[in-house]
Amino acid sequence: MIYTSESIERVVEYFSNLPSIGRKTAYRLTMFLLNQNSDFIEKFAQSLINLKQNIKYCSQCYNFTELDPCPICRSEKRNKSIICVVEEPADVNAIEKTNEYHGLYHVLQGVINPLENISPDDLKIRELLQRIKSDTEEVILALNPSTEGEVTTQYLTKILKPLGIKVTRIARGVPMGLSLEFADEATLSRAIQGRVEV
Amino acid sequence: MIYTSESIERVVEYFSNLPSIGRKTAYRLTMFLLNQNSDFIEKFAQSLINLKQNIKYCSQCYNFTELDPCPICRSEKRNKSIICVVEEPADVNAIEKTNEYHGLYHVLQGVINPLENISPDDLKIRELLQRIKSDTEEVILALNPSTEGEVTTQYLTKILKPLGIKVTRIARGVPMGLSLEFADEATLSRAIQGRVEV
Repeated sequence: MIYTSESIERVVEYFSNLPSIGRKTAYRLTMFLLNQNSDFIEKFAQSLINLKQNIKYCSQCYNFTELDPCPICRSEKRNKSIICVVEEPADVNAIEKTNEYHGLYHVLQGVINPLENISPDDLKIRELLQRIKSDTEEVILALNPSTEGEVTTQYLTKILKPLGIKVTRIARGVPMGLSLEFADEATLSRAIQGRVEV
Repeated sequence: MIYTSESIERVVEYFSNLPSIGRKTAYRLTMFLLNQNSDFIEKFAQSLINLKQNIKYCSQCYNFTELDPCPICRSEKRNKSIICVVEEPADVNAIEKTNEYHGLYHVLQGVINPLENISPDDLKIRELLQRIKSDTEEVILALNPSTEGEVTTQYLTKILKPLGIKVTRIARGVPMGLSLEFADEATLSRAIQGRVEV
């Protein structure tokens, strides 16, 4: 098999390294780029370089940001008495999209995972405790519904409760649009436990 | 909805412009890149810049290449008496993967398409005719099994036959409607073996 060009091969290789992109898709993307004008490719490449150069972690909430503190932490409009704890920066974006939450965030940058040797000390838990001040009224735990997420939620509950602040977790239940008959047992059972008066 | 960073937004935007990548995937890819080290991102960006700077069309077969003529055209091992005519550079790669064909290629850079105003003059047909010499024994037409591909095959047959060379087309092993670049090696390989004179 002759590859007609190493430059093409290298781009295919890099695209293949990205999640959910196989070799065939990588090759198609590369061919697509070759048919674009130089300007598009150069700006795309520059945006990637800027990404890593400009983005750092916010020194308060540990979300990705260009300015430190990040726009959410510095905003006058956010309710500074509520902190929502999430695993990853992507989770902040997911919650922001709901337009439902107007408090602050705290990105743990992972969850407790003994199998992968991730202990509480590897997460931004110490930094969370330092952020909790007298005007903090509530901490919402919005971790993923995985075993590790559950363990981390329990761990955080245990160390936050004694501080005398309200600790809540986002509701587990049947997702919108899903018929009851297709919900798995664990989800349904949580939904029944978490039933609310109407 | 607050986007925490313009640098992130820009990369998401560029990824979304690529075929088969929606906004959610684009965002996931961007988050993945942010978790890589600077070295990976810089090399990825550099590979994109090199792509457009290093790649040109081969002056003989009009495939993408870094060196002109391309490695296939300059190879001593290829059978120079057979020319396989394809639509796009991606098709050359697809056929090379079968390991079934050892002649030369000619990339038309499109097909005749009256609806999009693409006439024979817009394709590399004149260049194909110039390449046909006394030692050319066969021209294989390996265009996509689309209406435009069929029309172009018929057009080429009509102008190549009078030159007294054998004109063949790849067998209908390729299912109708599937682009060459997505055909599996076995099917493509059968199609080359079963080529028939037209």
